[in-house]
Amino acid sequence: MTTEQAPSPGISRRRLLGSAGAAGAAGLVAGGAAGAYASEAARETPEPLTSVGATAVPFHGGHQAGITTPLQAHGHLLAFDLKAGANRKAAAALLRRWSRTARQLTAGEAPPDDTGIALDAGPSSLTVTFGFGRTFFGKVGLDDRLPEALAPLPHFVSDALDPKRSDGDLWIQIGADDALVAFHALRALQREAAGTARLRWQMNGFNRTPGATDRPMTTRNLMGQIDGTNNPKPTDDDFERRIFVPEKGEPAWMAGGSYAVVRRIRMLLDAWDHLSLERQEKVIGRRKSDGAPLSGGTETTPVRLDKVNADGSLAIAGAAHVRVAAPASNQGAAMLRRPFSYHDGFRADGAPDAGLLFIAWQADPMKGFVPVQRKLDLGDDLSRFLRHEASALFAVPPGCAPGEYVGQALLEG
Amino acid sequence: MTTEQAPSPGISRRRLLGSAGAAGAAGLVAGGAAGAYASEAARETPEPLTSVGATAVPFHGGHQAGITTPLQAHGHLLAFDLKAGANRKAAAALLRRWSRTARQLTAGEAPPDDTGIALDAGPSSLTVTFGFGRTFFGKVGLDDRLPEALAPLPHFVSDALDPKRSDGDLWIQIGADDALVAFHALRALQREAAGTARLRWQMNGFNRTPGATDRPMTTRNLMGQIDGTNNPKPTDDDFERRIFVPEKGEPAWMAGGSYAVVRRIRMLLDAWDHLSLERQEKVIGRRKSDGAPLSGGTETTPVRLDKVNADGSLAIAGAAHVRVAAPASNQGAAMLRRPFSYHDGFRADGAPDAGLLFIAWQADPMKGFVPVQRKLDLGDDLSRFLRHEASALFAVPPGCAPGEYVGQALLEG
Repeated sequence: MTTEQAPSPGISRRRLLGSAGAAGAAGLVAGGAAGAYASEAARETPEPLTSVGATAVPFHGGHQAGITTPLQAHGHLLAFDLKAGANRKAAAALLRRWSRTARQLTAGEAPPDDTGIALDAGPSSLTVTFGFGRTFFGKVGLDDRLPEALAPLPHFVSDALDPKRSDGDLWIQIGADDALVAFHALRALQREAAGTARLRWQMNGFNRTPGATDRPMTTRNLMGQIDGTNNPKPTDDDFERRIFVPEKGEPAWMAGGSYAVVRRIRMLLDAWDHLSLERQEKVIGRRKSDGAPLSGGTETTPVRLDKVNADGSLAIAGAAHVRVAAPASNQGAAMLRRPFSYHDGFRADGAPDAGLLFIAWQADPMKGFVPVQRKLDLGDDLSRFLRHEASALFAVPPGCAPGEYVGQALLEG
Repeated sequence: MTTEQAPSPGISRRRLLGSAGAAGAAGLVAGGAAGAYASEAARETPEPLTSVGATAVPFHGGHQAGITTPLQAHGHLLAFDLKAGANRKAAAALLRRWSRTARQLTAGEAPPDDTGIALDAGPSSLTVTFGFGRTFFGKVGLDDRLPEALAPLPHFVSDALDPKRSDGDLWIQIGADDALVAFHALRALQREAAGTARLRWQMNGFNRTPGATDRPMTTRNLMGQIDGTNNPKPTDDDFERRIFVPEKGEPAWMAGGSYAVVRRIRMLLDAWDHLSLERQEKVIGRRKSDGAPLSGGTETTPVRLDKVNADGSLAIAGAAHVRVAAPASNQGAAMLRRPFSYHDGFRADGAPDAGLLFIAWQADPMKGFVPVQRKLDLGDDLSRFLRHEASALFAVPPGCAPGEYVGQALLEG
């Protein structure tokens, strides 16, 4: 595309449509093609967007967005590998481009040479989160800054990992409440990688649409189970310490950052759906209807692992998922799970290619995902119905201030 | 699963959650497992669902739902083939099961042995639409009722069709504004096919989330273009006649029905996005920003194919998509396009596997899709950026009344 005129960075997609009549005079240009979006026929003053489209999540901040942000209805995960010859300088330039574009997109602005896919939609809670994989550091001569916490995840018995859909030098997590807004961001960010990095793998996921249910906090997964009840809460005293690398943590460039464990977990839904509801609830340790633990109470009642039924049996079975995964069973290990479901049609064997894009956030994987998964791997009744098909671990640096870019302290520090 | 107690057909998922305290006494059972959803801990009276979740589209009616229903945010297309030995009686039983379940699901009720995936969501505008492919009729001994209009679609030059993802004996279109509600319906309907039919192909699509934009009528496709502006409107005098088989039409069992042309159209987005905005708009014949025709006016202004620019050139180029597709260029041929976008990751060549699940509705494909596509196939500038990868044509019978099932007049008449 030609770029006769620089884009106006502060112009929102909605203003472009709402005030198109003034476009020529004010030089409001969304794409690089001069005057392209200038419209002789101004629309009437647009109706206010509902909260779904109008909600914007700030890009800048102490932590990157997309970690404690409420789950969005659509997600894309993308991993990239640096191209041969891409050095530290090229990687820094890429992160600068990506950060600039992410800031524009999350504010509902149109980047240069815009594809227009998101035109007239609001930002729809778009978040873009960037991470670095272990393999990144050696390629750009930053071995000395490789965090210890990025050590390869151990092998688990239930792993059946596809290396082509695992790992990667760079990672982007995109979330939005509108599918076209999310796809628009994917295309814009992928285009900016050209020349420096190539797509290694990509996965698409989803959660509930805002307003489809009254249930505010948690979503259901494709097994029909409420997911996320026992997540650490931002109001917990130790939330920051568990999820984010502390101010004086190591390495220094990760202070305020977090580690993302990404697992593509296929669910054996045909086998699962053949279980009776009673069996399913015993495997999980919670009621399906409302997520209440089988030890009593409501969804948010703490699980009582010692509760015994009238017949002397444990209310929460010995191999129930909530028992094996509980912090009390894992020296207090905890992580913030923020998943998307996925469904990519069906496999050659006729089974659904569907499950969970499990994303877990923690200050240290060795005090979060690793000990819990080690325990689940051997003792969890649920694991019979799951296949871990892909795995990755990324260092997700802190958020950046205006004028900075994500990863700057790593790449320039 | 055990089925000690028959499900209560009129119990909604929300009532099950909202009035769970009364569940034991009233015998409110969502699944077949007795008392399974009875909860000792009743939730507080739930908040009202927002309109997104609470909207229910009636299953029963003169036409099937999902044809003139507003576009939903999520869609699944499923084609099935009858298993060897499945006769007319078995097919009738399947359509009866499917219709019963579709009625329950679209009302937000839980079918027997429910997977629970949609629990606590409203119906979210769920629609389920059933159709018959040409190959269905011979297999169940109904050759004499095969509609002439189900003649195979002609070959088009731009076709690169995958037979494994084309055609099929039976077709289901699922649409809903919530991804989990849509997936729940897919699983419930697929399970009921077991023994009678097996999945042949399946595709997943999406449109805008309700509330993401103010734009009420039309959506954008992945090329960034507003799509559907020139669709026939239910308020048009000839709408019924163009879209639905008339009361005295042939065959009699199709009166009130429609024909669905389904095409998986991959978009060559990398090539498209490299065009300048001006070139893109010339290819389409409309402005990208607001969909207004290049002959002037606003999105809904009729296209003036004869409009000439000051320099003597046509305002709408000779090979522009809107010119070649216009009813005026096709002896008035028209169809109701009701598509979903799709995005299945990326291909081996690095290009996005993304485009349009094009679904076109008409009373007669020979007066709708076929003449228009024949013209587009040869003369449309846009066709260079499209690949038709799969194709199917289905006879979609009229809707049914309570107590009846879709296709009953065909299978029992």
